[in-house]
Amino acid sequence: MTSWLEKRAALSPDKPGLYAGEDVWTFSEMAIEAQRLAEKISPYIKNQKPVALLITNQPQSVFLIHALQIIRVPVLMLNNRLTSEEWRYQLQDSQAQLVLHEEQFSLKTETALSIDECMRNNNDTITRFEEEEICSLMYTSGTTGNPKGVMQSYDNHYASAAGSAFNIGHNPDDIWMCTVPLFHISGYSILMRSVIYGIAIKLYEKFDEQIIHADLSGGKGSILSVVTTMLQRLLDVKNEPYHPFFRCMILGGGPAPLHMVERCHNEDIPVFQSYGMTETSSQFTTLSPGDATRKVGSSGKPLFPGEILILDTDGNECEAGEIGEILLKGPSVTKGYLNLDKSVPFSNDWLKTGDVGYLDKEGFLYVADRRSDLIISGGENIYPAEVESVLAGHPAVIEAGVVGKKDDRWGEVPAAFLVVADQIDEERLIRYAKERLAAYKVPKIFRFTDSLPRNASGKLVRRMLKEEINHESD
Amino acid sequence: MTSWLEKRAALSPDKPGLYAGEDVWTFSEMAIEAQRLAEKISPYIKNQKPVALLITNQPQSVFLIHALQIIRVPVLMLNNRLTSEEWRYQLQDSQAQLVLHEEQFSLKTETALSIDECMRNNNDTITRFEEEEICSLMYTSGTTGNPKGVMQSYDNHYASAAGSAFNIGHNPDDIWMCTVPLFHISGYSILMRSVIYGIAIKLYEKFDEQIIHADLSGGKGSILSVVTTMLQRLLDVKNEPYHPFFRCMILGGGPAPLHMVERCHNEDIPVFQSYGMTETSSQFTTLSPGDATRKVGSSGKPLFPGEILILDTDGNECEAGEIGEILLKGPSVTKGYLNLDKSVPFSNDWLKTGDVGYLDKEGFLYVADRRSDLIISGGENIYPAEVESVLAGHPAVIEAGVVGKKDDRWGEVPAAFLVVADQIDEERLIRYAKERLAAYKVPKIFRFTDSLPRNASGKLVRRMLKEEINHESD
Repeated sequence: MTSWLEKRAALSPDKPGLYAGEDVWTFSEMAIEAQRLAEKISPYIKNQKPVALLITNQPQSVFLIHALQIIRVPVLMLNNRLTSEEWRYQLQDSQAQLVLHEEQFSLKTETALSIDECMRNNNDTITRFEEEEICSLMYTSGTTGNPKGVMQSYDNHYASAAGSAFNIGHNPDDIWMCTVPLFHISGYSILMRSVIYGIAIKLYEKFDEQIIHADLSGGKGSILSVVTTMLQRLLDVKNEPYHPFFRCMILGGGPAPLHMVERCHNEDIPVFQSYGMTETSSQFTTLSPGDATRKVGSSGKPLFPGEILILDTDGNECEAGEIGEILLKGPSVTKGYLNLDKSVPFSNDWLKTGDVGYLDKEGFLYVADRRSDLIISGGENIYPAEVESVLAGHPAVIEAGVVGKKDDRWGEVPAAFLVVADQIDEERLIRYAKERLAAYKVPKIFRFTDSLPRNASGKLVRRMLKEEINHESD
Repeated sequence: MTSWLEKRAALSPDKPGLYAGEDVWTFSEMAIEAQRLAEKISPYIKNQKPVALLITNQPQSVFLIHALQIIRVPVLMLNNRLTSEEWRYQLQDSQAQLVLHEEQFSLKTETALSIDECMRNNNDTITRFEEEEICSLMYTSGTTGNPKGVMQSYDNHYASAAGSAFNIGHNPDDIWMCTVPLFHISGYSILMRSVIYGIAIKLYEKFDEQIIHADLSGGKGSILSVVTTMLQRLLDVKNEPYHPFFRCMILGGGPAPLHMVERCHNEDIPVFQSYGMTETSSQFTTLSPGDATRKVGSSGKPLFPGEILILDTDGNECEAGEIGEILLKGPSVTKGYLNLDKSVPFSNDWLKTGDVGYLDKEGFLYVADRRSDLIISGGENIYPAEVESVLAGHPAVIEAGVVGKKDDRWGEVPAAFLVVADQIDEERLIRYAKERLAAYKVPKIFRFTDSLPRNASGKLVRRMLKEEINHESD
């Protein structure tokens, strides 16, 4: 079985496939790097259990991802901002056979192997497995607060790449700028498009608006994936037009506010707003620039051949304009969660997103509320239930409610409402939370209260907390 | 289950999807037409056995094809140039439940229904079936001379469309000109790309070089599918540059001769030479214009993610430059032939094409000989074994050998070598053959001989006949 990168290298050997800083690799050079890494890794791979990667946005990470596709083992992409405890949960749950990590991330598990150490062995043969359909695993939390391993198959990635190309067009000379993390579906999917389409990616260690602006103006990239906060930062520094080679942005993480849509429209920046999730292997719907001002707040229509269904609480299909749960179907939708019953996220083959929204008469999707009151902070998903369960674990805390507070820089930041048994200061709570949660998940605001709002069946009504905390700032 | 056209109409309702003559239909207008036809046809559809279409390149044919996808029954596309006897064979073999035919084609079978008659009924509900994976059936002959029904799944068509887009790029404003028959994979696949990509097709009843030239010069189309003879005819009438909207031709039916490649290069006509067959749901490899002069005679490289394997007669993989049988693998490759064991055309999941060729060191495919001495005449495939078996059925004929003779207008025309028991004139033989074979398959040249060249195991050596007949003309 030949990996996608190897096929691409056979088709377009001399075409640039990766730009990073001043360096450039053709597809055949990339294949050589990936094959060399596959040789080094091979002795450690005993079976087709997942291999975890704990990496940053480096060229080596790109080659490592392709090396695992050459060997044909699923890769578990670990979010490098999580705590050791969070990593351990994912490693255990996925039964990962190996964690390859950059030196900077110290990980005390039996299966950990630093990439530098792995590179020191001298093996020069690749053991290739066959038929493995799962390409990548990424953990997301849900309503329960327990992270679940989303399985993305090769077919999922292929369909996602195809649907995106049909939607925004495909120019064989495109260069897709990747400033988002490779361990997120947003970044990982750019890698997959690169080998499937045969276009280069331009990889950035992190998002720096000055550098990106210079590259957009200098004709260094044609497509850019951003979240709302990145786009805002780009607009803040924009002082000259972008180069004609730049042709569009794919915007994730919630619809853009009107002022942003108008600014982009006036400055001729084509922005495709999108809605998607780890379970759909990247964007599932997009709103094209032509519809942006007419349909402010909408996430657009599905990528071909995806479909959307809105169901009311009785499980009946909603009329246009009627709010209900958003269900999705299409070839980019995950087959399910690792080790969990295949039926878990589905209802009659439709993925239950947990998100709430409606379709207008023309079939445009409006997302009213993200699943389980999802907080999106700087492009990272934060599940309130997960943060609440950590806070409630503190001896002084009786109960906790976590919601998103609007934030100019990050879009949202988590805020905690706490009912406490004993007085406790914020500093200690933050320290406690930081040991157990990635920094971006730790609440930035704490409010102490006598009770939390609950509905008749005792369920926490986060909406009320959200209104309260966001009203404060007005 | 929503058909592709209906999904496309939901995504791009107001975008033109079909141009024919002076008429234009948006995707939503197309969907309405197709739904109306699906209502009319529904009462006649009892199960998911194939429904045959006997049509010409008319807008109605486009709507009929989509109507059958709405109902979700496989369509058997009948070549309208065949004889009644040939149609009957395919109808019987496929167990088609219905043949919808244009009035001009008279077909005396129980299952025949003229389209006009079908249109006269008043039904207004659609019975939709589910889960049928086979989209279309097209018969091709092989070494045995017995036509076999190639099954093309929805996945096959989708993968073929995606692979082509990744290769030549996808411009959402493209208009794909369709002068090739809808009943061939070349034409049918244009219809599929249209709804998958969301681009219009411009449909022509037949190929007329004056009209096509005018449309290429007038900016009426951006992509054109042609076979070598069509391209030659176009070049013959070309007297002004094509409009910048025109961006490429996809050339099927064998590699272009050097003079043609050079002429296209000089006149800045980007031609993607291709190799494919009904079994690969359209082009499987293409040679890009950039490689055309460097690799004259090559059919290029596979569409992503397709693969090629060349095997020698012992079943070992050939080295670069070594000639062997061409085997293909990829998601656009058929699952097999209708009603035949799935293993028939495969060897370890690789499609055995029967064609002979080699890969050069850079992985470019060169087709040395088409399967079973396939004759390609004006874009139509002619299988010598089929014609031979008809000729040998005549009482006066002892044995027959049929090969292609080079022809300026058609590329090749069939020529027959006959060993006869009694003298017989050509006229009578032609009449006999015309009753049993489509006109384009009837030999244009007859040679009477005492014996046919055979190898040690008694197998006809058509190569020698081919040399003889083509040498004559020098």
